[in-house]
Amino acid sequence: MNRPTIAAFIVLAGLVTASSAYADDPLPSWNDGAAKKSILQFIARVTQEGSPEFVPPAERIAVFDNDGTLWAEQPMPFQMFFAFDRVKAMAPQHPEWKTQEPFASLLKGDVKAALAGGERAVGQLLMATHAGMTSDEFQKSVTDWIATAKHPQTGQLLTEMVYQPMVELLTFLRSHLFKTYIVSGGGIEFIRPWSERVYGIPPEQVIGSSIKTKFELRDAKPVLVRMPDINFVDDGPGKPVGIQMHVGRRPIAAFGNSDGDLQMLQWTAAGSGARFCLYVHHTDPVREWAYDRNSSISRLDKGLDEAKAKGWTIVDMKADWKRVFAFEK
Amino acid sequence: MNRPTIAAFIVLAGLVTASSAYADDPLPSWNDGAAKKSILQFIARVTQEGSPEFVPPAERIAVFDNDGTLWAEQPMPFQMFFAFDRVKAMAPQHPEWKTQEPFASLLKGDVKAALAGGERAVGQLLMATHAGMTSDEFQKSVTDWIATAKHPQTGQLLTEMVYQPMVELLTFLRSHLFKTYIVSGGGIEFIRPWSERVYGIPPEQVIGSSIKTKFELRDAKPVLVRMPDINFVDDGPGKPVGIQMHVGRRPIAAFGNSDGDLQMLQWTAAGSGARFCLYVHHTDPVREWAYDRNSSISRLDKGLDEAKAKGWTIVDMKADWKRVFAFEK
Repeated sequence: MNRPTIAAFIVLAGLVTASSAYADDPLPSWNDGAAKKSILQFIARVTQEGSPEFVPPAERIAVFDNDGTLWAEQPMPFQMFFAFDRVKAMAPQHPEWKTQEPFASLLKGDVKAALAGGERAVGQLLMATHAGMTSDEFQKSVTDWIATAKHPQTGQLLTEMVYQPMVELLTFLRSHLFKTYIVSGGGIEFIRPWSERVYGIPPEQVIGSSIKTKFELRDAKPVLVRMPDINFVDDGPGKPVGIQMHVGRRPIAAFGNSDGDLQMLQWTAAGSGARFCLYVHHTDPVREWAYDRNSSISRLDKGLDEAKAKGWTIVDMKADWKRVFAFEK
Repeated sequence: MNRPTIAAFIVLAGLVTASSAYADDPLPSWNDGAAKKSILQFIARVTQEGSPEFVPPAERIAVFDNDGTLWAEQPMPFQMFFAFDRVKAMAPQHPEWKTQEPFASLLKGDVKAALAGGERAVGQLLMATHAGMTSDEFQKSVTDWIATAKHPQTGQLLTEMVYQPMVELLTFLRSHLFKTYIVSGGGIEFIRPWSERVYGIPPEQVIGSSIKTKFELRDAKPVLVRMPDINFVDDGPGKPVGIQMHVGRRPIAAFGNSDGDLQMLQWTAAGSGARFCLYVHHTDPVREWAYDRNSSISRLDKGLDEAKAKGWTIVDMKADWKRVFAFEK
């Protein structure tokens, strides 16, 4: 074998390493600074053979919040857009919605009035659109919708509203044999149909909130029916519970952007050996959005204080990211 | 590179194939017969490039029941032995158990009387020994116990009571890039501490029954506390639900031994493309145990009929397995 052949063989064998695939920079959308440096140093500490803090590949678990950490979440979590569009699509089969809130307002195009009912209204919209069908049917409805759904302000596909620096980070971690998980307050079955294509994260590495499902034989055909009952809320103190349920090991790295991720970061940080916790801080009102302590969506208040006190990495999106979205010039 | 170097390189790269690693026989503890043949044919059909039924590696999900499918379950599921031993170990901290059933009988050594209370008694024994501690503490208690726990009749370590033909099958499937999962009616956290060592199945690929857990900060230290409430029963119609929750894809191969596995096999069989379903039939009262339609543990009745009607593979342990346990001569 000559040298080029051997090189090709190594790549084919999946043994892509930082030195071969990222000859220049594994994180090109990150500006050089403390955040980027802390990431590179942590990965080196836990993956270099002979390092006193070396972690075997099987234990390299990294967990990522989704909304606001891997993709945008303004003006509201994108799963709500799915619910709205499904209400419109399902309306012909539900004539009663014409006079029944929150559906009536939504069908008239008044989102604000529809959401005036708060959590109860959101719950009704979610259950009406996420329950009552089989798991296969729901998966198809998400797959079809996400293929064309666009952001109301940027006009970009929602799947283009992902943070390019975080996609690079996911890839970089996996090239160092980390297993990357999503741990989202959003619906587990809402994320799975597109997480592999968009993030390289397969369905079995998605953890999220869920409703109950029930096995049934329909005309001798087995189906899983989605029921209008909450099964699990994967947010705040639920995140470590969800991680333990699905992974059964404590992560060594955790990434979030709100107080709802704080317990996940605390749980990760409290393990023995090298640990890495990072908060994405939304500080860029021009390229993205700026919000933290007073936001109604994904408030980052206690988490920001704890991150500072404990020396966790805080990403200043404006300063630390060369590029936020891949579609930027 | 000379030829031996290249060969070594391929093996190191994880590209072990049937032809290199299993020059002779990938399933040496299986007698040649219809069951073994059906396994080999299925794996070839879904893994050979160019096969009309080729399945990409990411979709090669294989699910295995544990008790009675991967290891023995007589005279009762081994997790009960753990509960009994824990009751004895915990008794000094529970003086009230001296007069309280089912604990009192168990502490006197009368298992039959202790279990006379049926499901309620079993539930009390399980909750008393599986709840009330942190997840880390429970994991340690299982790890410590399983290191020395022996079978009351064979005197072998319980981790030696695994079926050697099934361990070979797990290894063979993984060498063909299958992801192997346990889907057990037993406790998920009871199996995880030893599944990697004994079966090569990591904790994140174990699905099982569970109790609720709760995140708490104790003196600023985050813990997951195990609560005395059922969270999920991963048995019968629960198995497809558990698989969807943890994997998010339908398996292409399923292995069980009782009616409690039937829905898992139905769910697997109902997918499109090549599918494989197998029942282990306990027919060997000499080397193992013989039981099926009238057994109180792991009854195999409806499943046996359905397997015959649908042409699923039925393993006759006595005839199909050259060796049941590795410790046999």
